[in-house]
Amino acid sequence: MSVKIGLVGTGTVGGGCIDIIQKHREDFKRHFGVDIELARVCSLDKGEAEAHGVGHLFTSDFHDIINDSDIDLVIELIGGTGVAHAIVTEALKAGKHVVTANKALMATAGEEIFRIADEAGVEIAFEASVGGGIPIIDPLKHSLISNEISSVLGIVNGTTNYMLTRMDEDGMAYDQVLAEAQAKGFAEADPTADVDGFDAAAKIAILASIAFNSRVVLDDVSTEGIRNVQPIDLKTARDMGYAVKLLAIGHRLPEGIDVRVHPTMIPKTHQMAHVNGVFNAIYVTGDAVGETMFFGEGAGAGPAASAVMGDVLEVARHITLGIKPIVGCTCTDKLPIVPMDNLETRYYIRLVVPDRTGVLACAAEVFAKHDVSLRSVVQEGTRERDAVNLIFITHTAREKNIRAVLADLAAMEDMLQVEPTVIRVED
Amino acid sequence: MSVKIGLVGTGTVGGGCIDIIQKHREDFKRHFGVDIELARVCSLDKGEAEAHGVGHLFTSDFHDIINDSDIDLVIELIGGTGVAHAIVTEALKAGKHVVTANKALMATAGEEIFRIADEAGVEIAFEASVGGGIPIIDPLKHSLISNEISSVLGIVNGTTNYMLTRMDEDGMAYDQVLAEAQAKGFAEADPTADVDGFDAAAKIAILASIAFNSRVVLDDVSTEGIRNVQPIDLKTARDMGYAVKLLAIGHRLPEGIDVRVHPTMIPKTHQMAHVNGVFNAIYVTGDAVGETMFFGEGAGAGPAASAVMGDVLEVARHITLGIKPIVGCTCTDKLPIVPMDNLETRYYIRLVVPDRTGVLACAAEVFAKHDVSLRSVVQEGTRERDAVNLIFITHTAREKNIRAVLADLAAMEDMLQVEPTVIRVED
Repeated sequence: MSVKIGLVGTGTVGGGCIDIIQKHREDFKRHFGVDIELARVCSLDKGEAEAHGVGHLFTSDFHDIINDSDIDLVIELIGGTGVAHAIVTEALKAGKHVVTANKALMATAGEEIFRIADEAGVEIAFEASVGGGIPIIDPLKHSLISNEISSVLGIVNGTTNYMLTRMDEDGMAYDQVLAEAQAKGFAEADPTADVDGFDAAAKIAILASIAFNSRVVLDDVSTEGIRNVQPIDLKTARDMGYAVKLLAIGHRLPEGIDVRVHPTMIPKTHQMAHVNGVFNAIYVTGDAVGETMFFGEGAGAGPAASAVMGDVLEVARHITLGIKPIVGCTCTDKLPIVPMDNLETRYYIRLVVPDRTGVLACAAEVFAKHDVSLRSVVQEGTRERDAVNLIFITHTAREKNIRAVLADLAAMEDMLQVEPTVIRVED
Repeated sequence: MSVKIGLVGTGTVGGGCIDIIQKHREDFKRHFGVDIELARVCSLDKGEAEAHGVGHLFTSDFHDIINDSDIDLVIELIGGTGVAHAIVTEALKAGKHVVTANKALMATAGEEIFRIADEAGVEIAFEASVGGGIPIIDPLKHSLISNEISSVLGIVNGTTNYMLTRMDEDGMAYDQVLAEAQAKGFAEADPTADVDGFDAAAKIAILASIAFNSRVVLDDVSTEGIRNVQPIDLKTARDMGYAVKLLAIGHRLPEGIDVRVHPTMIPKTHQMAHVNGVFNAIYVTGDAVGETMFFGEGAGAGPAASAVMGDVLEVARHITLGIKPIVGCTCTDKLPIVPMDNLETRYYIRLVVPDRTGVLACAAEVFAKHDVSLRSVVQEGTRERDAVNLIFITHTAREKNIRAVLADLAAMEDMLQVEPTVIRVED
């Protein structure tokens, strides 16, 4: 008996899923005794369905899938928290298993979705919501569960990692590399979700929830993006023995969960420093396993469809064998979120200031006023003749004090020419 | 109701498992609703059990576990294919689930073990048999199953990777670094299984079987170790832009499965080139997911126990929920093993020959005789005054012809002073 699939969303990833089913359906039957059948596809564009040879399964109304009692499993691939929320919750309530790639939905409504799935006795799976094709949610929910996980570090946004790699390797300016990423289709016309870190923040919220057995939502994540990063920052970091990555960070601390996204210096010798271009990686540390890393392609039709269809086959196995959901929500603990203000680390801060005598001393005084001890200050020219870069490296300092420094500097008349660049160090 | 565990083997990994159960039993109950109870431990050394506070559970006769109808699951950690074979098969026949870290057993008797488990309706799990704590078998059996896997490359022996790293970074000679690895406990007194590649061969047999859905056994793997590798080889490779790793290789080719273990040059830019010291990594390429890598600690009490206990918890979940085995043997295809003779690649070959005029021309002639085209030949001094290194880099050549070259050279009187070093290139 086949497991019948309703697919909502026939864009890049949805197309990839259709391709996999068409190419490997017989393999899946032979290898795993599971027969998956695409029963219905839904999107706003019939042409996409037709292009994959499934125009005859097309509907533009997702209720045709929800209300079809033959359909066992719904794949949601339209993204966002609007219609997607309705599709996922209605499908679950209708007793259908759901597989989704929707990070924004899981990072904001995860608790509700797990509750509805639990009440309906069906499965919700979302491997593709983090790290594209990289198996990470499944290992965290299965292979690694004998561990107390102490940290999860992720390079989970391919767009910004590509941009940082290009700036580092080729010295391209931020605007130039953003334009290139947009031209190549790596970045959206509105790049906010990527470059301001919100995409990565949703992903670390999901990973931290699973790794620490405690619900973390998007709003819990302190988030800074890469808009203020320029080649000079990457070059300076390199000279110091560091690579700069937009790192999504989750730490289990005695006082709770520390969770944040920001440009971060990591030692060149660290495995994550070699994760370049559009590749993603997630670095997990546990009390038994020690250090482990999961690396792969974080986006694109193939990788994301690989993760979606891995989930689909797993659920289909359970359906075929008549097995009820095995793993539901594992957020049984209620750990507090540690305020970012409490963070203690070293900071790289670059200011663009007027090129005049005394400006360095003046800025240094602000750091001293807030008890931030400096390890070094370097003055470097900019392309503007009347402005210079002041690059400060601090000793270990408290986030709260750094924010006070930055607020004071911003309030000073005729001081900051552009927003400061702040890069935290993760050793 | 608790799931009762019988543990056979209380050495390093067994001790790690006892520690995890003692430390996290309450966490497992709270997070996953699974209560695991250590009911019996078996080994030849009661002192080990006592050292972990479980002397009261000790027996020296594994039949006390097999015959105990209260025990649901047996962990086998004694290794080898003798008594371990009896323990695993008898436990399965007695209707007990089995978790093992035994690569040699799974790589030689895997088919039989799967058949017995299937007949008895119980689970056999063996994540810890490859890559220590790295989740790799589970991802291959679950997350990645929507892919046709085209290759699996593994750095799966920490001892030899440590030795190669030390030779590369510190220029230490083979004998010196082996002695150091033995002193540090990374290498056994008899290092054969590690340095001759048999440990890695068992692991790639297991990985290839799962990845390609076709049974590969230890004897199918063409295996060469690192005994003939010296710092000069690593230095030459580095100058050419390569790192040398003992790579376990499985490729799905149109004509069958190509599976082998040997010292291998991989480009410095490849992610695997940065896997150093005792770390392991497995690099998997699939038709949808593209390239993905799993990295972590390949040995030691914690990592191996993490993998064993991950399997135990997974099986315990199923026992608790009354779920029958979900995934059994997936080797449904019968793909042939491609003979190593058919391999076509580039070769690095270093000969130690007498330092006399004409020896280079004489050796080069042997290559020409067997149609092996040379890209470069370099002559370098050795520490012996009357011997020199001849380093040949070939264009793409056929393994069969290379073997003919080496046989001819070995047969020549007064030519080879030591066994040649052969390193294949994987681009």
